[in-house]
Amino acid sequence: MAEEEVEVKVRNKQVILKKHVVEGFPKEEDFQVISSASIEPKVPDGYGGVLVKNLYLSCDPFQRIHMRPLPPSLNNSSTFRSFSIGSPLFGYGVAQVLDSGHPEFKQGDLVWGITTWEEYSLLPSPRPETLIKILHTDVPLSYYAGILGMPGLTAYAGFYKVCNPKRGEKVFISAASGAIGQLVGQFAKLSGCFVVGSCGSNEKVELLKRRLGFDDAFNYKEEQDLDATLKRYFPQGIDIYFENVGGKTLEAVLLNMRQFGRIAVCGMISQYNNLGEEQGVKKLMQLVSKSVRMEGFTFLHHLPNYNEYLDLVLPYIRQGKIVYAEDIAQGLDSAPSALVGLFAGRNVGKQLIHLSDN
Amino acid sequence: MAEEEVEVKVRNKQVILKKHVVEGFPKEEDFQVISSASIEPKVPDGYGGVLVKNLYLSCDPFQRIHMRPLPPSLNNSSTFRSFSIGSPLFGYGVAQVLDSGHPEFKQGDLVWGITTWEEYSLLPSPRPETLIKILHTDVPLSYYAGILGMPGLTAYAGFYKVCNPKRGEKVFISAASGAIGQLVGQFAKLSGCFVVGSCGSNEKVELLKRRLGFDDAFNYKEEQDLDATLKRYFPQGIDIYFENVGGKTLEAVLLNMRQFGRIAVCGMISQYNNLGEEQGVKKLMQLVSKSVRMEGFTFLHHLPNYNEYLDLVLPYIRQGKIVYAEDIAQGLDSAPSALVGLFAGRNVGKQLIHLSDN
Repeated sequence: MAEEEVEVKVRNKQVILKKHVVEGFPKEEDFQVISSASIEPKVPDGYGGVLVKNLYLSCDPFQRIHMRPLPPSLNNSSTFRSFSIGSPLFGYGVAQVLDSGHPEFKQGDLVWGITTWEEYSLLPSPRPETLIKILHTDVPLSYYAGILGMPGLTAYAGFYKVCNPKRGEKVFISAASGAIGQLVGQFAKLSGCFVVGSCGSNEKVELLKRRLGFDDAFNYKEEQDLDATLKRYFPQGIDIYFENVGGKTLEAVLLNMRQFGRIAVCGMISQYNNLGEEQGVKKLMQLVSKSVRMEGFTFLHHLPNYNEYLDLVLPYIRQGKIVYAEDIAQGLDSAPSALVGLFAGRNVGKQLIHLSDN
Repeated sequence: MAEEEVEVKVRNKQVILKKHVVEGFPKEEDFQVISSASIEPKVPDGYGGVLVKNLYLSCDPFQRIHMRPLPPSLNNSSTFRSFSIGSPLFGYGVAQVLDSGHPEFKQGDLVWGITTWEEYSLLPSPRPETLIKILHTDVPLSYYAGILGMPGLTAYAGFYKVCNPKRGEKVFISAASGAIGQLVGQFAKLSGCFVVGSCGSNEKVELLKRRLGFDDAFNYKEEQDLDATLKRYFPQGIDIYFENVGGKTLEAVLLNMRQFGRIAVCGMISQYNNLGEEQGVKKLMQLVSKSVRMEGFTFLHHLPNYNEYLDLVLPYIRQGKIVYAEDIAQGLDSAPSALVGLFAGRNVGKQLIHLSDN
């Protein structure tokens, strides 16, 4: 005998795409925060997905790619589909399950993974690689959008699995104060390597040297000749380059790699904003003369190593041996500015948006 | 009691560099064949090197690099020193020892390794990686400048060690009829792979398909859109690319690589003739999205595998399971034309110069 049900609806503020960003840097006007939608905070009957309340949203460089209208051939793939005009953006986040039609998740579960940029997200088909249960809550929840989430596992996989570091090796990291770079640098120090990072402001240089333990750091905007800069910091050359930026930085690095060097290619943010006139990379023959390995990777293929990674990193976090610099914007209204700021390099540390506590 | 010695001198024809070739394709006039020198065909007293009679000289793409005047910083290294104006070129060759002051070599030994472009070479300090004794003479001696020499071991190392091929994988090879490419293709077929090669003439296409057993081949000069061409030959994408040319070919390949693909970077001949305006390579982000490994290598680091390679390849040669296409010019007078022809793509198969029989 059904009780009388009262339909409760809640406001669901959203960040939607207003227009695709073909070239150049995204602007706040490309996005819009709307409050019109309201939803019933439960999953429909017979629905196999989950309804979550978003706690943190993550701003990540890869999202630039989704701001473009992609050709249909690419847009079929879940990895490459564009943001849809008028729909909320998507990306990584930390959330709490409010209602679930999925056997693996129940009300109250804390999760991290792919979510949509709104207060409440109905996630139709969570898979083990898109939604992961949070089991350790003695560390900040925001960390699951950073050091304990996609950026963390990316840094781990790229540095330990792709680069196979050895004690005493010389490591260079670009975008070094970002969500991933700052971790690679700390992993490298813990591995007994010499580590220099490049970044885009003197404030970030200080962060790298004072708080994150890099051996040295420089502001690439103040360097006229990156090849000469790298020769100054690495007179004997670079063994490991963790590549986040591409373009001219990669060219300069190629000239400074050592025999049997490794380049983990994580991303190339310098190229994301100008696809129309992508910069070609010269000096690739250096790969041959120095027997250098350059290897692209994505964290998704390393998800089976996630627990192994947690086993390594959680003790370091608890013992204060690894710190994680976050730049947390408050509230969904600040989301467009936070996202746009990431591509302008305004963030200092991992850029997040805090929506709610659990 | 010393017998009376008669000083015997022999003519020593040489191919010398007339002027450095800074940009563009080398021309025959950049070299000169001179007959003025004559030498005593023995090593000086107390000399630690060997005197050899050259039998075959090898024309190889890497020699283009040595035609340039290199900056002193690079020119210090034995790998990168320039040819000297007025002196004979150097490169790989097959030779016979006429006289030796080195304990490892004796008169009559057949050797392959680094020699100079003249009839007789005084090799001052042969090292295990520059001069290697020939132990198997039931195969053509010329093979030691090709399939059994540097190109052979390069093909072996690049394909088996760098690419780690698996049965059924799809392999693309550029400069596929060259000294190295033709072997990679045959190794790939013996490994159960599907193999397509690109080359620069229809005659070479026929060679690849009819004689060398490639599944397919195309003349890149007749293709307008290499990306579309590769999609035609590899509708499911490329697992292994053996890179000999660089530039636009590499860009097109990057667009067509499959997940976890491997690119063995052996050389980039398309770039050797125009250093002044090196083409940048775009589409490197494909390395990330497809987790592709791109690895440079040189045969020198694989010399310890030389005997292992001989064990593999000699039976194949004797059984006729591997063939080796050679393009043999006769006599030192033909050397400038043969060398220049290599960069114009005139050679069909491995380009050699035959000077003498043993």
